[in-house]
Amino acid sequence: MEASSLNIPINADNAIVWHDERLLLLDQRVLPEKAEFIGFDTPQLAAEAIRQMVVRGAPAIGITAAYGVVLAARLRAAASPTAWKVGLKEDMELLAQSRPTAVNLFWALARMQGVIDTLNETDDPVSRLLEEAKAIHQEDIAANRKMGELGAGLIEEATQVITHCNAGALATGGYGTALGVVRSGHAAGKISQVCADETRPWMQGSRLTAWELQQDNIPVTLLVEGAAASLLAQGDVGWVIVGSDRIAANGDVANKIGTYTLAVAAKYHGVKVMVVAPTSTIDMSLSSGRDIPIESRDPAEVLSFGGKQIGAEGVGAWNPVFDVTPAALVDAIVTEKGVVRSPDSKKMAELMA
Amino acid sequence: MEASSLNIPINADNAIVWHDERLLLLDQRVLPEKAEFIGFDTPQLAAEAIRQMVVRGAPAIGITAAYGVVLAARLRAAASPTAWKVGLKEDMELLAQSRPTAVNLFWALARMQGVIDTLNETDDPVSRLLEEAKAIHQEDIAANRKMGELGAGLIEEATQVITHCNAGALATGGYGTALGVVRSGHAAGKISQVCADETRPWMQGSRLTAWELQQDNIPVTLLVEGAAASLLAQGDVGWVIVGSDRIAANGDVANKIGTYTLAVAAKYHGVKVMVVAPTSTIDMSLSSGRDIPIESRDPAEVLSFGGKQIGAEGVGAWNPVFDVTPAALVDAIVTEKGVVRSPDSKKMAELMA
Repeated sequence: MEASSLNIPINADNAIVWHDERLLLLDQRVLPEKAEFIGFDTPQLAAEAIRQMVVRGAPAIGITAAYGVVLAARLRAAASPTAWKVGLKEDMELLAQSRPTAVNLFWALARMQGVIDTLNETDDPVSRLLEEAKAIHQEDIAANRKMGELGAGLIEEATQVITHCNAGALATGGYGTALGVVRSGHAAGKISQVCADETRPWMQGSRLTAWELQQDNIPVTLLVEGAAASLLAQGDVGWVIVGSDRIAANGDVANKIGTYTLAVAAKYHGVKVMVVAPTSTIDMSLSSGRDIPIESRDPAEVLSFGGKQIGAEGVGAWNPVFDVTPAALVDAIVTEKGVVRSPDSKKMAELMA
Repeated sequence: MEASSLNIPINADNAIVWHDERLLLLDQRVLPEKAEFIGFDTPQLAAEAIRQMVVRGAPAIGITAAYGVVLAARLRAAASPTAWKVGLKEDMELLAQSRPTAVNLFWALARMQGVIDTLNETDDPVSRLLEEAKAIHQEDIAANRKMGELGAGLIEEATQVITHCNAGALATGGYGTALGVVRSGHAAGKISQVCADETRPWMQGSRLTAWELQQDNIPVTLLVEGAAASLLAQGDVGWVIVGSDRIAANGDVANKIGTYTLAVAAKYHGVKVMVVAPTSTIDMSLSSGRDIPIESRDPAEVLSFGGKQIGAEGVGAWNPVFDVTPAALVDAIVTEKGVVRSPDSKKMAELMA
């Protein structure tokens, strides 16, 4: 549905909205050309929305899954008011299978499960679960504002920054992780301009990051990923600032494909790398990034664009959609609980203690 | 015109054809979707074809410019049979202005000028100039075959390779520079598979490299530029093999934007970088890559795709279309005159002596 018909302001902070007892998602596949909400009443459709990238970004996926549990609980409780837990468990497994890399999805489901564990089969679960989903959503925004402040504090003098993919309001409950730091840093006069990788194959940089920064009047210039090393060589970029989909216990960082290539180029040029992510992105159960499951998607995402075939007929493509940047290439991990400089297992454990 | 209507085989070796007293160019903007020749009778239109990238690739641009001089000479000699040199000089300046980075363009024009200098104003220049243009074309193919052999000789054991952009038959008179090494290396059992960067923003990897390797039954897999570091980290790639648009006297290499980012990633992973280019690509007048003029093109090439706007409305883009890889990141420059390992000014001077 047209966003304008709902009387909800069209901006990146309203990408996930609980409205009129439904979950509304701003369809990120068609931005910025169209601003349209899709409404969801079932966990099956919410899971499919995650899989199809109607919503994307690790924290946003977690919040969506939490609201998906509310939709599921309402249907299961209506069908079996005194025995809804078994069905709800199935629905949560379905939500968990939607995408493999971002750990926030599993973190949010675990947190919703924690609430379910406090309820009896004869309780109506909806209001408590909705309260929890809304809390997850609001806490994410608060965490982003805190990280924005902490991350901006690391920038010593006014500079340009490069970001990759979209770790903005659209990827979170609002305000953004990497782009939260950009917002806070720009407001503090520390970030003069954002250079945004277009981010193949989904073009999150061109379509989403440019759109949301432009709405906030933050100067943004797009570039192809291949141009990043040339830009870094010019010496005007002080920081690479990115989000994350999962951080291992040793500080290795999974993020959108291309982050590792960018981090290697940054290291070569002596430019610092800041990873901004809430602690819900940190997976202390994995000792290193080698253990993070990396999603591979349809080669057609690389071989075609907007439904049009680009690659030669019959040629294959390799389409891993995340990569792992080793902790050694990361100068700072910024979370709502604090900053970890030059991360390693010991420092990560201290942060999470 | 449809390539099939001309009775000329449609393959990458026939991208530049002198046919029926005209210059025919296989339109590389529409490959692989359509295989169409465009015919040229004037140097103005040939220069525009270079600017618009109907033909691209440093050696191919040089060959096209040489044939462009033939077209110019025919028109000028017909108009002024005893005073064609002044007009022809103007036409050659126009051809020289078509694109700034690839030095082969200027090299080919200088070679054609050498022939003009041997002629009198009362001579008919066309047959001698056509002979020279055909010689430039044929010598380029021969150079590519020689480089193919020399480059393949550097590969010690069977491996996968990554290439960037298209340095193939389509970018040259035929056979290709980097892809000439791939052809020779594959035939010798040394290259098992080519991983091809799609090469934003023009998609030369997806559209051209994949197409021409597939015609030769050489296994090729596409990837986005951002995935290169992840691929290199897997340890199955032995060489990065690329072409060049201009090589400075110290061995610094200008090539398609993204080459430098890839070379930095290769260095980080201990993967060797081979640059394959004829000596006509070497510009001994420039002491380092800092002096190589880097073409910037319309930001719309980054912001739109296939005529469709991708980037948020009103956002700008930085679109340098070449970058410079310092000699320190290059393990070998392969030319038809020999191989320069770990290039520097002294070794380059010895090669060119």
